[in-house]
Amino acid sequence: MKIKTGDLARLVEGHLEGNPDIWITHPSKIEEGEPGSISFLANPKYEHHLYETKASAVLVDKHFQPKSLVNAALIRVDNVYLTIGKLMQEFNQTTNGNPGIHPSALIDESAQLGPGVSIGPQTIISSDCIIGQGSCLYGQIFIDREVVIGKNCTLYPGVKIYKGCRIGDDCIVHSNAVIGSDGFGFSPDGSGQYQKIPQLGFVEIGDRVEIGANTTIDRGSLGATRIGHGCKLDNLIQIAHNVQIGDNTVIAAQTGIAGSTKIGSNCQIGGQVGIAGHLTIADGSRIQAQSGIASSLTAPDGKWYGSPAIEYLAYLRSYAEFKSLPDLARRLKAIEDHFKASK
Amino acid sequence: MKIKTGDLARLVEGHLEGNPDIWITHPSKIEEGEPGSISFLANPKYEHHLYETKASAVLVDKHFQPKSLVNAALIRVDNVYLTIGKLMQEFNQTTNGNPGIHPSALIDESAQLGPGVSIGPQTIISSDCIIGQGSCLYGQIFIDREVVIGKNCTLYPGVKIYKGCRIGDDCIVHSNAVIGSDGFGFSPDGSGQYQKIPQLGFVEIGDRVEIGANTTIDRGSLGATRIGHGCKLDNLIQIAHNVQIGDNTVIAAQTGIAGSTKIGSNCQIGGQVGIAGHLTIADGSRIQAQSGIASSLTAPDGKWYGSPAIEYLAYLRSYAEFKSLPDLARRLKAIEDHFKASK
Amino acid sequence: MKIKTGDLARLVEGHLEGNPDIWITHPSKIEEGEPGSISFLANPKYEHHLYETKASAVLVDKHFQPKSLVNAALIRVDNVYLTIGKLMQEFNQTTNGNPGIHPSALIDESAQLGPGVSIGPQTIISSDCIIGQGSCLYGQIFIDREVVIGKNCTLYPGVKIYKGCRIGDDCIVHSNAVIGSDGFGFSPDGSGQYQKIPQLGFVEIGDRVEIGANTTIDRGSLGATRIGHGCKLDNLIQIAHNVQIGDNTVIAAQTGIAGSTKIGSNCQIGGQVGIAGHLTIADGSRIQAQSGIASSLTAPDGKWYGSPAIEYLAYLRSYAEFKSLPDLARRLKAIEDHFKASK
Repeated sequence: MKIKTGDLARLVEGHLEGNPDIWITHPSKIEEGEPGSISFLANPKYEHHLYETKASAVLVDKHFQPKSLVNAALIRVDNVYLTIGKLMQEFNQTTNGNPGIHPSALIDESAQLGPGVSIGPQTIISSDCIIGQGSCLYGQIFIDREVVIGKNCTLYPGVKIYKGCRIGDDCIVHSNAVIGSDGFGFSPDGSGQYQKIPQLGFVEIGDRVEIGANTTIDRGSLGATRIGHGCKLDNLIQIAHNVQIGDNTVIAAQTGIAGSTKIGSNCQIGGQVGIAGHLTIADGSRIQAQSGIASSLTAPDGKWYGSPAIEYLAYLRSYAEFKSLPDLARRLKAIEDHFKASK
Repeated sequence: MKIKTGDLARLVEGHLEGNPDIWITHPSKIEEGEPGSISFLANPKYEHHLYETKASAVLVDKHFQPKSLVNAALIRVDNVYLTIGKLMQEFNQTTNGNPGIHPSALIDESAQLGPGVSIGPQTIISSDCIIGQGSCLYGQIFIDREVVIGKNCTLYPGVKIYKGCRIGDDCIVHSNAVIGSDGFGFSPDGSGQYQKIPQLGFVEIGDRVEIGANTTIDRGSLGATRIGHGCKLDNLIQIAHNVQIGDNTVIAAQTGIAGSTKIGSNCQIGGQVGIAGHLTIADGSRIQAQSGIASSLTAPDGKWYGSPAIEYLAYLRSYAEFKSLPDLARRLKAIEDHFKASK
Repeated sequence: MKIKTGDLARLVEGHLEGNPDIWITHPSKIEEGEPGSISFLANPKYEHHLYETKASAVLVDKHFQPKSLVNAALIRVDNVYLTIGKLMQEFNQTTNGNPGIHPSALIDESAQLGPGVSIGPQTIISSDCIIGQGSCLYGQIFIDREVVIGKNCTLYPGVKIYKGCRIGDDCIVHSNAVIGSDGFGFSPDGSGQYQKIPQLGFVEIGDRVEIGANTTIDRGSLGATRIGHGCKLDNLIQIAHNVQIGDNTVIAAQTGIAGSTKIGSNCQIGGQVGIAGHLTIADGSRIQAQSGIASSLTAPDGKWYGSPAIEYLAYLRSYAEFKSLPDLARRLKAIEDHFKASK
């Protein structure tokens, strides 16, 4: 988006104080503002930056009274935070995407592409795939056979989706994420070797899901690995075969969930968490970063920490004592010595 | 594979009860069965699903006696589990692969391809590579110079193999795995900066090895990083330079092994384990998920847990006390107070 | 590099004892030496390998006196270690790279390529990119719009760089690393769902930085995620949005740093470390592998361990007591019993 200050003020239904003819091309932090950028002042703590910023325009509250000279044009709005959100989406939408089908894309003739679909250079769409209306696939993506992708999805370069996986509407998948790789299933054959258990299932991802860069989601061995609507998965996460995740659960980077575990809805799972296989995690569970979950969490809305994890505050209390264990051991020894001496 | 129930019964040497002319196209879980799918009942616990399944056919034990009406065709076999395994491989084999050499693949004229090799679209095979008979490389793979890949391997889209690495027969490498990247070798130059130590070795992978999606295996700085025959590596694993892993060792997702460590044969290493560099891990070691190994494990077949890891049961015992540390500290204080009072 | 023993001796300013006409094509470990390779003997502990090595030539100290018959040609030098380093760089330089622009690369006409730039097959350079002199991009790389890459960089196959990111001079980025993916920013909307906060910033990487395979570095939500000069990042690392890392900090594999945290210069961060968001980590901090940093580290040059981390030696002391916690609990119980009995 490239827009003049006057038009931008109208776009956000704000009131402009300053030159309406400055071109704005991108947003900036107020302390890093540059000519051509629009910044914002929402938290009064940062007001001093306003008097020094090089941003061409700054969004402020409609009642804001500057205490000193401001070089930037001011755009007064009802709610600075809401306006920023709206504005960021405007900037984002207009800079995204690869319009149309690139001639170097390889699209099987049996694939069905909805209206307005964009396919980037060197992206491969295999047979019997369906790509929903308005979805944008960047370059160098591999979509294997019989994959279904919903409407208005964005897939970034290097995403690989194995055969038969299904992705809902309004999803975002970041670069080099892998969806549908084989689950880690092997059976010992008695001689010390392992035989592969064929992985014949698929992955099913709901609507409004975001999948981070280099995250891996294995296909079910039979049936689905399922990610519910509205889930948000950060980078470098591992989701094993036949895991089920409820709606609106968010998972931070580098967490791993082992096979067949069922995670509830509206959970918040920190980074580098490990969850063992075949467990059930209740709705609303909050798991602190680096925790290890070794047994099912049955009470909803619990908060957990440690490896293996216990109740969050209990862990903090135990860990506080852990730090003074040498002192505790010394004191115990002193009492023992006293006993021996007094015998 | 698309096969009629009658033919399928003959294929698995079973006895059919029901319509021999229903087309079967895929396997399913019994509780998720759909028309056209074949399911199985092995564990009596799930027998109730049999009377409600929509699967067109179900594998059961030859002596099984249904207690109620079954809509699905039954195929009676000697050993349900063995038959499933066989059947899954049938379904798997016939849906895999990219037959032939795709015209968009870039194959150096000095590369040697065995008979029956498949190379997918946009895959790059550099000079002096050798690809063994029957191996199937999906699209968007990069094979750098002088790489040797054995017979009957499957490499999924996006795999990258650096110069001079060698992979055995019957291996599977999942999407976006990286084999042969530079080891993390730097020497401080005294001024606070680091100089790169050139990484001139390679990776050597045995036969029947499976490498998970987005796993990384660094080349040796000199000589090989070696993965033994029959090893199974899950997703997002890090294997550093000059690591040696014995035969038939299995490693779960997100584990990292630091440089020059030697892992024995037939080890079982859980997820998110970290193993420090220059250690030796004895054959048959079993390391619990999230453990940290800071020194060599010399006794074979040990079981380990914790960070730094100690013997498995010892860790559980210590951790049980850790959970009641606040109580323990309070009790110690009570005794101290009693002493002071009694003085 | 392919060079005769005589020329190689001259190249390293050494003195040759043996045949000057043997072709040397690669370095090797002395115990794994093959005809055509050059090895070295620096540590006297390994002298016995010299008498059995199949390497064609071996670098030794100028004063070295063999105790037995040596088949390899000897090249005597002043400092074996320094000479190896030099030699390895020679071998490395001459085997690297994809000279020129491959015809299958897709380079936007608005992109500016410096002299001597190499672009591998199927690499995509989008509009308004700048690639500095002498940089080598392997195949299957995706460079989105307005990306700036400095001089003499090497990017390996499968690297994906999002819009507007900037990379300094002399950087190395390994396969399937992702630079500039969206930060993990969502705001709850009150109904249990999350709204995406647009991620409009970029990534800025200094000079002489190395980024490992499958590592992910998210763009700032506004402004930059910054990696300082001389930093070395191993494989599978996660750097979240708006993280700032000072110069010459090294980070081992699978570590994750959450949003907006500022890491100082010359830090050493072990593998699988987790650092929470919005923290400040002092210059020279050394963080043990698998540690979790939950609050800012303000004292420079500290050493830390544990989750949450405490001072390194304090952790080891506490952990030593943790291991004998069952004994400690038993002893406390004995004293309590004694008290009760004596009442």
